[in-house]
Amino acid sequence: MTVSDPKLAPRGRRSRRDAGKTKTARTATIGQNLHLRVPYITRRIRPYDLMDEEGLIRIETTADRILAEIGIEFREDPTTVDLFRQAGGQVSQLSQDAWNIKFEPGMIREILRSAPARFTQHARNPANTVEIGGDAMVFAPSYGSPFVMDLDKGRRYGTIEDFENLIKLAQSSPWLHHSGGTICEPTDIAVNKRHLDMVYAHMRYSDRPFLGSITAPDRAADSIEMCRILFGSDFVDSHCVIMGNFNTTSPLVLDGATTAGIRTYAQAGQGSIHLPFLLGGAVSPLTMAGSIAQCLAESMTSCALAQLVRPGAPTVLAGFLSSMSLRTGSPTFGTPEPALGSLVMGQLARRLEMPLRCAGNFSTSKLPDGQAMQQSMMSMMSAVQGGANFILHSAGFLDGLLSMSYEKLVMDADMCGAMHAYLNGIDVNDDTLGFDALAQNGPGEHLFGTDHTLRHYKTAYWDSGLNDDQPFESWEEQGSVDSAQRANQRWKDTLAAYEAPPMDVATDEALKAFITDKKASMPDAWY
Amino acid sequence: MTVSDPKLAPRGRRSRRDAGKTKTARTATIGQNLHLRVPYITRRIRPYDLMDEEGLIRIETTADRILAEIGIEFREDPTTVDLFRQAGGQVSQLSQDAWNIKFEPGMIREILRSAPARFTQHARNPANTVEIGGDAMVFAPSYGSPFVMDLDKGRRYGTIEDFENLIKLAQSSPWLHHSGGTICEPTDIAVNKRHLDMVYAHMRYSDRPFLGSITAPDRAADSIEMCRILFGSDFVDSHCVIMGNFNTTSPLVLDGATTAGIRTYAQAGQGSIHLPFLLGGAVSPLTMAGSIAQCLAESMTSCALAQLVRPGAPTVLAGFLSSMSLRTGSPTFGTPEPALGSLVMGQLARRLEMPLRCAGNFSTSKLPDGQAMQQSMMSMMSAVQGGANFILHSAGFLDGLLSMSYEKLVMDADMCGAMHAYLNGIDVNDDTLGFDALAQNGPGEHLFGTDHTLRHYKTAYWDSGLNDDQPFESWEEQGSVDSAQRANQRWKDTLAAYEAPPMDVATDEALKAFITDKKASMPDAWY
Repeated sequence: MTVSDPKLAPRGRRSRRDAGKTKTARTATIGQNLHLRVPYITRRIRPYDLMDEEGLIRIETTADRILAEIGIEFREDPTTVDLFRQAGGQVSQLSQDAWNIKFEPGMIREILRSAPARFTQHARNPANTVEIGGDAMVFAPSYGSPFVMDLDKGRRYGTIEDFENLIKLAQSSPWLHHSGGTICEPTDIAVNKRHLDMVYAHMRYSDRPFLGSITAPDRAADSIEMCRILFGSDFVDSHCVIMGNFNTTSPLVLDGATTAGIRTYAQAGQGSIHLPFLLGGAVSPLTMAGSIAQCLAESMTSCALAQLVRPGAPTVLAGFLSSMSLRTGSPTFGTPEPALGSLVMGQLARRLEMPLRCAGNFSTSKLPDGQAMQQSMMSMMSAVQGGANFILHSAGFLDGLLSMSYEKLVMDADMCGAMHAYLNGIDVNDDTLGFDALAQNGPGEHLFGTDHTLRHYKTAYWDSGLNDDQPFESWEEQGSVDSAQRANQRWKDTLAAYEAPPMDVATDEALKAFITDKKASMPDAWY
Repeated sequence: MTVSDPKLAPRGRRSRRDAGKTKTARTATIGQNLHLRVPYITRRIRPYDLMDEEGLIRIETTADRILAEIGIEFREDPTTVDLFRQAGGQVSQLSQDAWNIKFEPGMIREILRSAPARFTQHARNPANTVEIGGDAMVFAPSYGSPFVMDLDKGRRYGTIEDFENLIKLAQSSPWLHHSGGTICEPTDIAVNKRHLDMVYAHMRYSDRPFLGSITAPDRAADSIEMCRILFGSDFVDSHCVIMGNFNTTSPLVLDGATTAGIRTYAQAGQGSIHLPFLLGGAVSPLTMAGSIAQCLAESMTSCALAQLVRPGAPTVLAGFLSSMSLRTGSPTFGTPEPALGSLVMGQLARRLEMPLRCAGNFSTSKLPDGQAMQQSMMSMMSAVQGGANFILHSAGFLDGLLSMSYEKLVMDADMCGAMHAYLNGIDVNDDTLGFDALAQNGPGEHLFGTDHTLRHYKTAYWDSGLNDDQPFESWEEQGSVDSAQRANQRWKDTLAAYEAPPMDVATDEALKAFITDKKASMPDAWY
């Protein structure tokens, strides 16, 4: 893999300057924000450092204590157990295929010293290559929903057609940077084969970076093998071109399929994201300080495995903090406590000097309505202000992650555009301070025609490509539609205008041949 | 007036402890959040200090330069001009009733040294008295819309019936602390008389603090006179019981009705809020740094007038930063640049040691839809994270402030509940770090039954009283309604259950007699 180096910065700037020249369906949603287009965001605002030093240290100390006194349980993967034993972990065998490993305070942090603070994930279109870590920020669509929904057909199980449509919609947005992974589950394809179609769809219908399969080690290996066809084996051996998103089995368990998958990605020098999905009160303490400490302990340990397999492998610390409706026991998303917790995760990741995946456009709503966007914004702001580096679930998330919404994908992506402007911060210089603009006409005179206004009017403000800012009467004349209805029309228009990015025919044939052979080599399995 | 003093703190705490005992319609929307109820919020999180010291100093220096080199234009109020002349302002007469006044750098700041950093606004129910300034935060409903809207009847001009209904809805929410002011324009009552009915509605249908009339000096005086009836003259002479919200006439003008109104409130020792409403590119520079500098210059000057009239008068620095759709020229609300600017206004107010009114639940949407709540949340987060002290427009704002929405008032108020939890921050102590909770059952075991969960389950998470967090199937069985429809039902239920807070009959009669006499003393006027 390629660990970040300063030479990469000009690439981002060059792409930004050229961005307006690309002709795609993207222009349909871009408003007047051409100047904001970038392959990934470089954060220009301070992060919101919510917690004081003392609190952070107590959380870190508690994470260390969890690892030293309670330990992590590993299952069904003796290779991983051996790696940690050799590194100094204190192993106790619990049963034939389960082990508890305790780690002396500081040991996991010591292993993580080899983890890069920032790395590059390459896209097949070099203009879309992203940086992950430091002040770089990458938005990717939602991940992992079994259902899809739209306003016309309601909720139903996702299919490969939905999967491809959603990839196309994400690719068409200028405000997403990464194609994501399981944008929905294509439930019409056998479980042991669907990863092939999913990886192909990302490769064919997007030209951005993407995530590969993690559900079994051989599927992880297939994902990487397809990258060898797309990028060339030599390139894949020395560059990160794919990542896997791995969930811990909270509380404090790493199962064998997960650890074997992590080893597969790390061995190939590819990226891995290490995510505790913590529903407070169910699989972590109900109080946020405790959930954060556990999140840190679990994610650090999972990241450490990748470093033991291949020091320097691209690894991403991660956290998905969630709450619960205490009246019903239902998980809740987009609520205040996890938003605060995500800000703190940002602080902890910076202290570790590791990239972070955290938060996203979370919601429990079943429709792309007011509740959905209120919850999304609260959650997404925590990612943006907390300086998270890889923000999965940036677009489409509804129904507590059970459903991927066509409309909400479009609405969230527009909001991601706003976040580009937000992360640009406020420039303070003689020109932006505008003294001359005020002085030009003086008190009581509007500034429409000042030189300053004419100089800045194209770039001063983010301009939504989806929201309605018209006078009431114009909005009424146009049918009084709400934002969900506008998004419904928008995704249909975008799909109709979509053109796949060009791909070399031989490469496409080779990918298809690989998939055909793989599918023929095994019967369908639905687990 | 009463400037804040430490003895007031126990009042807040006592009210909080007793909050659950009050029986009102509020219980309909409170969810499980009883522990969050307070008469006003005490911020327990750090503010988001977005801008560095150098940027802040440059903005302050530019504000000083605007005041020294361009000056502020005053109209039709020679008394105010004399006050500033005596304080050292350099006055140039522009016409018979217009003067430009320039202020040497630092002069306005020097005058503002007498302004209290924090003060108390008393409510007729002492349990609802609020603090304004410091780490205190007060949410008040939206202000100033000529139209009202609801899902049944759409948009129409507001009436006194709407005004009363909206006061009742706000009063019924446990998450608003202040009754606001012109919650909508009661357009069915003559302009020169409607302030009487408005002030009466606040006094009668709410028992929280409120804002009085500012549209003309005699209406300001009437508002204060009615307070004398309600609170007693002696009390009003020595306590702040009402505030006026005064807009500058940007750029850089203070008109005579405004300055005379400010003098009326200040002379009576009552509070005043000093608001530049800055639509960038129209009445302030298009670039945010310049808008902020102008905002600071205008608001400081307006506040300084109150201090010249009565040193120590309660004054609130304020800012309403807005953007523009550069394709259409329409104002836009809930966008990223003003959200950043509002965070900076928070920093500037803290440097001045003055209370701040800033931001709110802004939106341009014409419906309480996804756009509305996305825009609202972005804007409201800037108030909450920026440490604004008085947050007008916390509930109901739609249609670029042209319309007050019944449904959005209910939705925003629920969101204000979430902000109570957000502002509580994250407690870090041995109990909340939850080590024992994790250790109790160990890896792989859920925490539902741990002692820690049982101890915290009632207070760990904010629990919306309006959002739907149920499983999809339950939501579908209940009619698949969106959040706007839920809010529609909620406001009807709340109005049906509303009971006015008790009021002494003699006081009520005296207020009514005052209004009858005043109305009889002049013909209707519609300006």
